[in-house]
Amino acid sequence: MRNLKLIIQYDGFLFHGFQIQPTARTVQGEIEKMLSHITGEDVHVQGCSRTDAGVHAYMYCLNFHTNFPIPADKLPYVMNNNKITTDIKVLSCEEVPESFNARFDTKYKTYRYLINTNPNEDVFLRNYQWFYGKPLDVEAMRQGAQHIIGEHDFRSFMTSGTDVSSTVRNVFSLEINNPSENLVEILITADGYLYNMVRIITGTLVSVGEGKLSPDKVKDIILSCDRQNAGPTAPPQGLYLYKVVY
Amino acid sequence: MRNLKLIIQYDGFLFHGFQIQPTARTVQGEIEKMLSHITGEDVHVQGCSRTDAGVHAYMYCLNFHTNFPIPADKLPYVMNNNKITTDIKVLSCEEVPESFNARFDTKYKTYRYLINTNPNEDVFLRNYQWFYGKPLDVEAMRQGAQHIIGEHDFRSFMTSGTDVSSTVRNVFSLEINNPSENLVEILITADGYLYNMVRIITGTLVSVGEGKLSPDKVKDIILSCDRQNAGPTAPPQGLYLYKVVY
Repeated sequence: MRNLKLIIQYDGFLFHGFQIQPTARTVQGEIEKMLSHITGEDVHVQGCSRTDAGVHAYMYCLNFHTNFPIPADKLPYVMNNNKITTDIKVLSCEEVPESFNARFDTKYKTYRYLINTNPNEDVFLRNYQWFYGKPLDVEAMRQGAQHIIGEHDFRSFMTSGTDVSSTVRNVFSLEINNPSENLVEILITADGYLYNMVRIITGTLVSVGEGKLSPDKVKDIILSCDRQNAGPTAPPQGLYLYKVVY
Repeated sequence: MRNLKLIIQYDGFLFHGFQIQPTARTVQGEIEKMLSHITGEDVHVQGCSRTDAGVHAYMYCLNFHTNFPIPADKLPYVMNNNKITTDIKVLSCEEVPESFNARFDTKYKTYRYLINTNPNEDVFLRNYQWFYGKPLDVEAMRQGAQHIIGEHDFRSFMTSGTDVSSTVRNVFSLEINNPSENLVEILITADGYLYNMVRIITGTLVSVGEGKLSPDKVKDIILSCDRQNAGPTAPPQGLYLYKVVY
């Protein structure tokens, strides 16, 4: 069978996350419906990540097996011509070796989080940024972020009750940027992520940025391995899966 | 009775326009529902314009009469605390003379239209800009726009079949800007607008910008008083009511 790798982009606003659900509208559900319709087969896709409801993707990767003989580079055109699902865009498609798995073969993934510090909320940005509305000390956030970089047990930054074999992850980089006057951008690159890890790291760094936590306290939070010590879980609408590398 | 003037902002994506309809979700319908709930009265609002489905407003003005004794400056807070209607934001409220009418007392209104010329469509902008995807000759568009400024019979720029007493309007200014590399912005200010006038002017100027029409042809189109001669009606999602002045 052929194995096809798709790179897509989606606006998470009207999706109940990536993973298929029996009744709710999901990215996986829409993609499988489209591909099953195009190929006449019962297509199942393997995504690179289970993004939550409201979370976006600039670049998301998935793969699926098919016997349908469409040239790989023609598939994005056919899928994008679907006028019903306008909140998913297929950026590219290529044929990959039979063994390629979009979830297990990732080398690293980068997430982006956008925080709006403007005191006046903008109705057009409500689904695309966290409206925080108060100034943040970006320099303190950068100092706090230094403790997160590296290989650590990130149990403090995982929604409790999640069942995983290891809570150790390697964060390769964590940048805090100030791309425009009222915008704070967090860019994090790691080999893998625990459930809600980026949103809890963001909530914790925002606690540092508003002066509730000293930057060095972040180190203690990691070492404690206790979710209770970290900051709140930042809302989903500011989060974007930004880059996936194999 | 008190007469209250509200300034609101709304994202038109999920509305079937401003004007109330029996079954579809509209801005007027949502606002009247909110105000009737707050005041316990059967509130009817007078809007400044009937924006179409998908059209946005940075600044929209409406007024309504009530006996409810809430201080005017507290009403935005109460309305914005409604967590259901997140795509309308109330910017301000003030008490105005009994005779004030948000529709008939406007001196002028400014509309903004955004055209994206980037060849790669961005899924996050699909509801907020016209994805045109090809370069436009902004200088030619500016030359064409000069013919539109002033008092003219704008019948060529009105969707036919509309019933109005006069088709003469006064366009005070019409700017074509290039705020970033792949973005063309049209800003038009007039004392009033015919049905679809801004979208047909935009479609016509885009025809000039792509070289299908010479800039001077715009003058002939106006003089012909024939909708057939003007360009296509640009899509709603690039259009914003931008400013209302009384």
